[in-house]
Amino acid sequence: MAPAIITLLTDFGLHDAYVGMLKGVILGLNPAARLVDLSHGVPPQDVLAGAMLLRSAWRYFPAGTIHLAVVDPGVGTRRRALAALAAGHFFVGPDNGLLWPVLAAQSHFQAVSLENSRYFLPEISATFHGRDIFAPVAAHLSLGLPLASLGPPVAAPVPLRLPEPAFQEDLATGEIIALDHFGNLISNIPMARLHAWLAGRSVQVLIQDRLIPSLSQTYGQVPPGALLALEGSHGFLEIACRDGSAARVLGAGVGARVDVKAKP
Amino acid sequence: MAPAIITLLTDFGLHDAYVGMLKGVILGLNPAARLVDLSHGVPPQDVLAGAMLLRSAWRYFPAGTIHLAVVDPGVGTRRRALAALAAGHFFVGPDNGLLWPVLAAQSHFQAVSLENSRYFLPEISATFHGRDIFAPVAAHLSLGLPLASLGPPVAAPVPLRLPEPAFQEDLATGEIIALDHFGNLISNIPMARLHAWLAGRSVQVLIQDRLIPSLSQTYGQVPPGALLALEGSHGFLEIACRDGSAARVLGAGVGARVDVKAKP
Amino acid sequence: MAPAIITLLTDFGLHDAYVGMLKGVILGLNPAARLVDLSHGVPPQDVLAGAMLLRSAWRYFPAGTIHLAVVDPGVGTRRRALAALAAGHFFVGPDNGLLWPVLAAQSHFQAVSLENSRYFLPEISATFHGRDIFAPVAAHLSLGLPLASLGPPVAAPVPLRLPEPAFQEDLATGEIIALDHFGNLISNIPMARLHAWLAGRSVQVLIQDRLIPSLSQTYGQVPPGALLALEGSHGFLEIACRDGSAARVLGAGVGARVDVKAKP
Repeated sequence: MAPAIITLLTDFGLHDAYVGMLKGVILGLNPAARLVDLSHGVPPQDVLAGAMLLRSAWRYFPAGTIHLAVVDPGVGTRRRALAALAAGHFFVGPDNGLLWPVLAAQSHFQAVSLENSRYFLPEISATFHGRDIFAPVAAHLSLGLPLASLGPPVAAPVPLRLPEPAFQEDLATGEIIALDHFGNLISNIPMARLHAWLAGRSVQVLIQDRLIPSLSQTYGQVPPGALLALEGSHGFLEIACRDGSAARVLGAGVGARVDVKAKP
Repeated sequence: MAPAIITLLTDFGLHDAYVGMLKGVILGLNPAARLVDLSHGVPPQDVLAGAMLLRSAWRYFPAGTIHLAVVDPGVGTRRRALAALAAGHFFVGPDNGLLWPVLAAQSHFQAVSLENSRYFLPEISATFHGRDIFAPVAAHLSLGLPLASLGPPVAAPVPLRLPEPAFQEDLATGEIIALDHFGNLISNIPMARLHAWLAGRSVQVLIQDRLIPSLSQTYGQVPPGALLALEGSHGFLEIACRDGSAARVLGAGVGARVDVKAKP
Repeated sequence: MAPAIITLLTDFGLHDAYVGMLKGVILGLNPAARLVDLSHGVPPQDVLAGAMLLRSAWRYFPAGTIHLAVVDPGVGTRRRALAALAAGHFFVGPDNGLLWPVLAAQSHFQAVSLENSRYFLPEISATFHGRDIFAPVAAHLSLGLPLASLGPPVAAPVPLRLPEPAFQEDLATGEIIALDHFGNLISNIPMARLHAWLAGRSVQVLIQDRLIPSLSQTYGQVPPGALLALEGSHGFLEIACRDGSAARVLGAGVGARVDVKAKP
C-alpha cells in the first residue's frame, strides 16, 4: 500500500519555520507520510480565502488523502477542532467554516471533535494548535487511526456563509470571490448552472462598468490585452485578461459585482 | 529501483493551489513519485526567464529525472505540447521555447507532440493544461511509459531566441539575461568562452557607466559594498556586489549591456 | 529503517532554482532522502535571523534528522564549513554562528571541519558552497557516513552574539529578536526564566511607549485589535495583536526594547 498523502494549507507564509515544524511533527509520527503543500499564502486569518482554495484543490488528490488546513484566528478560544471524512478524503482543521464548503457539497460526511489528547503533542501551546494538535492528528490518521478514536461526533460543524449568485429571468448577478496569481477574477457563478439558466441564449458580462460582449472558450479567442469571460479551471465564471491581469486592468478584487445579461 | 523524480517549474506562484493540484494529479497516477520544486516564481508568462532557470538547474538532478515545466501563455491556442528525452532526462511542457535551450545544447534529443489523450485527465479545461495534460503525462513517464506512446515525433521544436554575446578583437559585449534573489546580475557571456578569447589578457568590465577593474574569484577579494565581476555558479560572467545587491547599486536589470575590454 | 530526513534552511528565496539545485544534488546521492523545507525566506545574509529559525524548528523533527543550513555571506573566504552532531541531530552549514545557538544549548556536541573533498561535488564554485559542499555532505551523512570521515574535529565553532535579557529587582529588559509573518514580535525573554523571576508577582509590559497591563494566556482574552503579551510558541515572551499585526500597530521590529515591570 502506498504511504498516505497529507496536504497542508495554512496562512503561515513561508518566511518563518512554522510550516517546517508541522512537517517535523508529522514525520516524527509517520516517517513514511507524503507531504504536499497546497498553499501557505492564504491571507492571515482569512478563513473564506482558505476555504475557497481547499474546495478547489482537494479533489485532484487520490482517495485516502488527508487534508490538513489551518487558518485559525480563534486558536486558544473555545472553538472546536475537527477531523472529518467525506468523499473518501480526510480533513483536519479548526471548526470555523474552513472545511465547510467541502463537507457541505457532499451527500454525506462524518465529523468528530478533536478531544482525545492522547493524539496531540504532550504540551499544547495556547497559540499554535497547528503544530500541537492538528499536525499530530493528521499523522495518526495517516497511520490508519479510525476517526472515532479522536473524539465524539459533530453533527453540525460551523457553516461558512458563501455569497450565492442570484438568477432572475434575464440577469444573473454574482460576485468575485477569489483572485489568483495571474490576476484572474474568479466569480461565484458555477458555469454548469449558468449554462442551464442560459438555455442557449447568448450573453453579455458586465463588471466595473466594462462590457464583455460574449463568453470565450480560450484566451486565444481575443486579442492580447482584451478582457474575456470564460469557464475557469475551478468550474466557475472567470474574468481574465489575455496576456495580462484582469484585476489590474479593472481595478477589481474580491467582492466586485458581476452581472451576466441573457440576450434572447 | 528508486522512484522517479519529477521536478516542477512554473509561473503559478505559491499563493494559489495550482501547484498543489499538479502534485495531486501526479500522485494519483504514481503515488511513489518524488516531487521537487525548481521554482514557481517565474514572472507570469515569461518564457525566457523560465527557460533560463530550467537550463541552469536540470543537470544537478540524476539521469532519469522528469522535468515538468509550465510557462504557457498560449494555453488553449494551437501551440503544440511536448515531451522530450535529452541527456538521459525527460522534459515535458508547451512547445513555445521553454524547453529549447536545454534541448538545443545537446548533441541529440528526441521529442514528441502530446496527442494521445489516453494519458491526459478525462476532462481537459481550456486554461489549465498544466493540470490536465502536462502533469498526467509526466506521471505516466515516471511509471515507465515510452515517449513514443505519447504522440508523433517532433523534429523541430519552436526555438527560443537568446541574445548572443559578440566577441571582437579587444571587446566582448553581452547583456544581462537574469537577476537572482541576491541581486546578482547574470550575463549571457560564458566564462569558458571568455577565458579562451582573453588568452591570458587582463580585463576591465563596464556596466551602467561603472568600471570594474578586473575579474575576481570570490566575493572576499573585494571590500564590502564593492562591485565585482566573477564566474557565477551558472558558468556565466556575473556582476555582484559584496554583501549587497548589484541590481540595486547599479539600477540594472535584464537587458542591461555588459562590455568586457581586454588589455594586452 | 525509515529514510533519513534532511531539512533545508537558506536565504536563497524561492524565485531562483538554487534550492532545487541543492535538492537535485542530494537526491542524486541519496534518492531515498526525505527533503523538508524549513524556510528559504531568511533575509539575504542575515545569519542571526537564520540562526533563530533553526533554533526554534529543529527540535520538532525526529532524532537522526540532518539539518542543512546555508546563510553564507563569507562563501569563498577562509571561513570554515561545519558538520555537527548534537542531541541526536546532525547540522551542516558554514561556521559563522548560524549553527551556534543550537549547539551551545546542548550539554555536549561534536563538530568537524569539512575538509575531505571526496564528499563534495567534483567541481567547487567560488560562490555556491551550498550546492557544491554542504548539500553533498548532508547527503553522505544521510547515507550513514560517520561525522569523523568529513574532516578534523572543531572544538570551538564561531559563536553568535545573541542579545541577552537583563533581570533587575523589579525590571526585566529584553529586546525583539524576530518578527513573524503575522506581525508577532518575538523577544529574547524566555518565559520559564521570566516566571521564575516574577515568583508570582503580576506584571506590566512596555514597548514603544505602549503599556500592556498584564500577561495573557491566549488571544481570546483580549478584544479584537488589542495588544497582548503572552508566551509564544517558541517559549519566549511575544507581543501580539489580536486579529492584527503587532509589528504594524507598534511600528516596531527587530531590536525594539521590551520592559517588563514586576508589581508586588
